[in-house]
Amino acid sequence: MYKKSNATTYTLGASLTYELLSRKGERALHVYFHPDFLKSEMYPVFVKMCKDNIVPTSINEKIFRRLSDKEKCLVIGEFLKYDTGIKMENNHLVLHHISNMGNLGTIIRTAIGFGFDDIVLIRPSCDIYDPKVIRATMGAIFQIRFAYYESFEDYQKEAGDREYYCFRLNASEDLRKVKKAEHYSLVFGNESSGLPEEFDHIGNGVLIHTAKTIDSLSLPVAVSIGLYEFTRGNSDAQK
Amino acid sequence: MYKKSNATTYTLGASLTYELLSRKGERALHVYFHPDFLKSEMYPVFVKMCKDNIVPTSINEKIFRRLSDKEKCLVIGEFLKYDTGIKMENNHLVLHHISNMGNLGTIIRTAIGFGFDDIVLIRPSCDIYDPKVIRATMGAIFQIRFAYYESFEDYQKEAGDREYYCFRLNASEDLRKVKKAEHYSLVFGNESSGLPEEFDHIGNGVLIHTAKTIDSLSLPVAVSIGLYEFTRGNSDAQK
Repeated sequence: MYKKSNATTYTLGASLTYELLSRKGERALHVYFHPDFLKSEMYPVFVKMCKDNIVPTSINEKIFRRLSDKEKCLVIGEFLKYDTGIKMENNHLVLHHISNMGNLGTIIRTAIGFGFDDIVLIRPSCDIYDPKVIRATMGAIFQIRFAYYESFEDYQKEAGDREYYCFRLNASEDLRKVKKAEHYSLVFGNESSGLPEEFDHIGNGVLIHTAKTIDSLSLPVAVSIGLYEFTRGNSDAQK
Repeated sequence: MYKKSNATTYTLGASLTYELLSRKGERALHVYFHPDFLKSEMYPVFVKMCKDNIVPTSINEKIFRRLSDKEKCLVIGEFLKYDTGIKMENNHLVLHHISNMGNLGTIIRTAIGFGFDDIVLIRPSCDIYDPKVIRATMGAIFQIRFAYYESFEDYQKEAGDREYYCFRLNASEDLRKVKKAEHYSLVFGNESSGLPEEFDHIGNGVLIHTAKTIDSLSLPVAVSIGLYEFTRGNSDAQK
């Protein structure tokens, strides 16, 4: 089983492992093939990629029973966790106390789509390297940079001069009308509780206007709308 | 266990069952309480709501073991499935061959948020009344109208004069620039395969512009961005 304290983690599935080998091949430690995969036309492709990256392989059924509970999975990659750091000259997506692994994965996938390559996680946070998160990113995890901070203040100290847009249900500024700075961070709170009160006095409060029930957007949906709107005016999506 | 062919289905959980009783109380057949719920301060509230709606109740542990596998759940509502039909004078959200129950639930929740109250499901489609879908809507299911059609042509025959916006990865019109008609349907395809080729010649093809990998948006995210953009110009979100 995967543990947060492990130095390595896993890509469960052929396409995820393909992403690992093609984007972070230098981090890959081992690739495991399920016996059923040997007849796949992709098998020789993987064997060559592993050879090119000097990654040992083995055919082993046990690890599949141990790591992939339900989902059908025929290839597993093991890789060394890495720290990327974030670029302070870029705009950031900040997730404060995110708790759901599927949500984090989906958000990473969306962030990449809108050119947000730098993701900040304020603790407590779910573990970005949990195989469930990695799976939900559909490989986008290998394209982002990320950093954990113990508190939002710790992040602010390093984040330099920038505007903060804090998405809150009690904010009065309508996302569609908010004046967008050039250099900024978009800040989202926890799935159930949102951003805590102290954020009422940080940066600009932003509201996604919805009809009827104010409570009707899931976190990945709210984040995606925020990313979309903030890059909407770009001739191209943000680079 | 729930079956698609059953005439009834279930709300698993207290807040979902609350939504059922307050919005579609006339459809409720029975409410089951887990023994652990009797000490909750919400118990008398539920008892009163059931009385007001003339819904029988019982205290029963077995049904919880039978219906709610993992999630902690202390109240279950059983209700008669109903057909709502859709309003042809409204704008519609059309889901072609949607296959994931969590996605359908999330999309219903988002649709309500943006004032799209009429949802069209083109078969094959997952079952909107599966308890997993109901749960993912977080109660929004009791606020929408919906209709199934055997094919898109069948739907078009009834849908009257309106514009169709078909979200496709091979479309050339940028969502941000597309001219929005007053009366329209937004059409989205299956999670893995998108809209089939015949949609290349139906209505307007619309593309959500993304950076890098074109493949990076999940269906609920793509739908939410489409709904957001199409109601963006409204002084308020769509009514």
